Amino acid sequence: MTNGLKVGLAGVGTVGGGLVKLLAARGDTLASRAGRPIELVAVSTLEHRKNPDVDISPFRLVKDPVALAKDSGIDVFVELMGGEGGVAKESVEAALRAGKHVVTANKALLAHHGPSLAALAEKHEVALNFEGAVAGGIPVVKVIRESLKGNDISRVYGILNGTCNYILTMMEREGRAFADVLKEAQKQGYAEADPTFDIGGFDTAHKLALLTSLAFGTRTSFESIYIEGIESITPADIEAADDLSYRIKLLGVALRTDSGIEQRVHPTMVPKHTAIAEVAGVANCVAIDGDFVGDAMLIGLGAGGGPTASAVISDLIDIARGSILPPFGTKAKDLKPYKKAQMRAHEGGYYIRLSVYDRTGAFAAIANRMAEQGISIESIVQRRARAELPGYDRPHKGSPAAVVMITHQTTEAAVRKALAAIERDGHVAASPQMIRIEKL
Amino acid sequence: MTNGLKVGLAGVGTVGGGLVKLLAARGDTLASRAGRPIELVAVSTLEHRKNPDVDISPFRLVKDPVALAKDSGIDVFVELMGGEGGVAKESVEAALRAGKHVVTANKALLAHHGPSLAALAEKHEVALNFEGAVAGGIPVVKVIRESLKGNDISRVYGILNGTCNYILTMMEREGRAFADVLKEAQKQGYAEADPTFDIGGFDTAHKLALLTSLAFGTRTSFESIYIEGIESITPADIEAADDLSYRIKLLGVALRTDSGIEQRVHPTMVPKHTAIAEVAGVANCVAIDGDFVGDAMLIGLGAGGGPTASAVISDLIDIARGSILPPFGTKAKDLKPYKKAQMRAHEGGYYIRLSVYDRTGAFAAIANRMAEQGISIESIVQRRARAELPGYDRPHKGSPAAVVMITHQTTEAAVRKALAAIERDGHVAASPQMIRIEKL
Repeated sequence: MTNGLKVGLAGVGTVGGGLVKLLAARGDTLASRAGRPIELVAVSTLEHRKNPDVDISPFRLVKDPVALAKDSGIDVFVELMGGEGGVAKESVEAALRAGKHVVTANKALLAHHGPSLAALAEKHEVALNFEGAVAGGIPVVKVIRESLKGNDISRVYGILNGTCNYILTMMEREGRAFADVLKEAQKQGYAEADPTFDIGGFDTAHKLALLTSLAFGTRTSFESIYIEGIESITPADIEAADDLSYRIKLLGVALRTDSGIEQRVHPTMVPKHTAIAEVAGVANCVAIDGDFVGDAMLIGLGAGGGPTASAVISDLIDIARGSILPPFGTKAKDLKPYKKAQMRAHEGGYYIRLSVYDRTGAFAAIANRMAEQGISIESIVQRRARAELPGYDRPHKGSPAAVVMITHQTTEAAVRKALAAIERDGHVAASPQMIRIEKL
Repeated sequence: MTNGLKVGLAGVGTVGGGLVKLLAARGDTLASRAGRPIELVAVSTLEHRKNPDVDISPFRLVKDPVALAKDSGIDVFVELMGGEGGVAKESVEAALRAGKHVVTANKALLAHHGPSLAALAEKHEVALNFEGAVAGGIPVVKVIRESLKGNDISRVYGILNGTCNYILTMMEREGRAFADVLKEAQKQGYAEADPTFDIGGFDTAHKLALLTSLAFGTRTSFESIYIEGIESITPADIEAADDLSYRIKLLGVALRTDSGIEQRVHPTMVPKHTAIAEVAGVANCVAIDGDFVGDAMLIGLGAGGGPTASAVISDLIDIARGSILPPFGTKAKDLKPYKKAQMRAHEGGYYIRLSVYDRTGAFAAIANRMAEQGISIESIVQRRARAELPGYDRPHKGSPAAVVMITHQTTEAAVRKALAAIERDGHVAASPQMIRIEKL
């Protein structure tokens, strides 16, 4: 057949390699499924990042990705190199300007430059598809952009980083400390040598920025996202959560409020006996609350060569079929400016863990500080670490005891003020731990 | 604007009413989301089935749905009357023959006549979309048909009937008997006056027939589905499941095996601490195992006016955008004949509950019957109903005791032979209960 969709691929790492394998495994059936053949014709890859499991010898090699992007022999440029700027940005722009469709799984690039790239794609009437950029194989981009289009969405949230979810799952299942599990995850290849990008919440934030734009029709605004990572989570928190019937997950949450859109990434208490609490290990999920559909959730693998290649292929099939949509579901020029809701206005319940000196009046002082801010307490427990159980109340009188509180609905501002006052009062041996509770 | 997509709606019950409301609430924004206005212009409804909450006075009334289907003033015929044949079939056929697109949420119609209707739609180059027919608001049709198209799917399964899931959830949470919960569900409107269609598994089977065809590219074959309902599930089973760390769900499962495709609907043991085990109440879910994407799952509301209207609207938007696909994702003429795997060849673990007379040799006889069929037992527990606890072992010597076994992987044929022999041997006071365990 001569009307094949000709693909140029830049980046043959894990995901690029997965794509090459998928195309090789499924070439014939894909042609019938897509209505026309999808043909990989040229690749660009760095010698030292080449995937040893993948044979790229059948394809024309174009060293410079920017040259490949403009290559007259291709219809679609698939960018799987990654990186928020540099050659990824340059080559994607070059491809769009040359009237080539683009498929990418590059969340950093889109979180920072999404609206301008979308405008460029629309100007040249080509696709800029990025199903693989959010939650890997989970087809959430298309679900929001097409399937749930009749809905007004009030919230979109999810577990968007497999490394963090793996670490939190292992901490919970094995009662181990963060640093310990992280080290093992690095050994097993579930975490990078420099894990900051994952465990600090930045990767989750990139994906959240894209979900926000898709769900609310706003311009991406990565810099507006409130970000906390999982580094501060201790086994004591995980145990206390368990006792209180919660699990701790790193969530990315975008919520429409009266004062704007709240975008936040932080460790979150989710109730046990919910589906999201059972999304374990490297799995991801995305939940969407729509006014007609109600609460919907998608679960699956959020990274890896196979799942992400599955997403890239669905983008390619849409292009092969001629189904071209505005990248963010709304025309770039119609994307509303992002209006940021202030984090201090965030409303919700809070988990607070204090290390309180055993002194007369300490409890009363803490309770007063909470009351001053109008915070009412749903439950309060003086906890010992499980490792100390069974035994006496505390190692010895005067040493700090863990006090865990769950608040009723309140504001972030109130909680921050109360905790600052409590810390100033000097009854606590360490900075208070505070974890937001997400209402499901 | 003059290029609106003109819609004729037949059936203004719960779902039809939801659609009218959605179009009224979202008319303006839908036009921009779909690229052109979606205009409801005419409706057909039975006087006595009219939804009192919905104002249809703005629309032209066409009494006869078949006349509406062919009406020159419409581009799309939306069939929300329901029913496996009769006027639903007649009007859908009339619409397709007249070159109108069709959107329907009628699973019975499609489960029985899917391939011929799909062929008719393809012949006239129009859409036959049915996102609302499977799992209501959960966008699984489009996800399988488009998003996961790069995958070979090995299994698709799910909780596809909200009534059954609600009943099982209440039985578990409140320790109540099936008949009791059913009666209450009927009062609350979660179950029909004649509940056979839901609790007998037939509704689940209709939806499964469609999922099978979408996932495997085969002709729908409703009559090949093995169907068991939930009527036989007792509180004793739910308690035993709980003790063994399982929950009981009514699943529809389609599995590709070496001897064909296994399609089955039956109560199923799923492990606790999985997302599917936490799909509670009237919620539905669909899981898809693909070779590249891995295991993916979608959760949401499977019925009701809002969720189903959300699905119908997404079908209409696709039509408005000109994105027309073969109804089952594969051209009707290329749908493979369905090759049925025999249920007796089904492989898996089994839960077996026996009411065994307390006689010397009874246990040995049972164990021998299992061994004869090569079935090995993973665990065996002699159970008392919780209501009897704490107390003596059994009310009195000689009365039957509940024995619960979990088998290792075996075949349906072996289990059926062993249970028949055990029943013949006369050591059991009632027919054995047998529930399949699904490997997740």
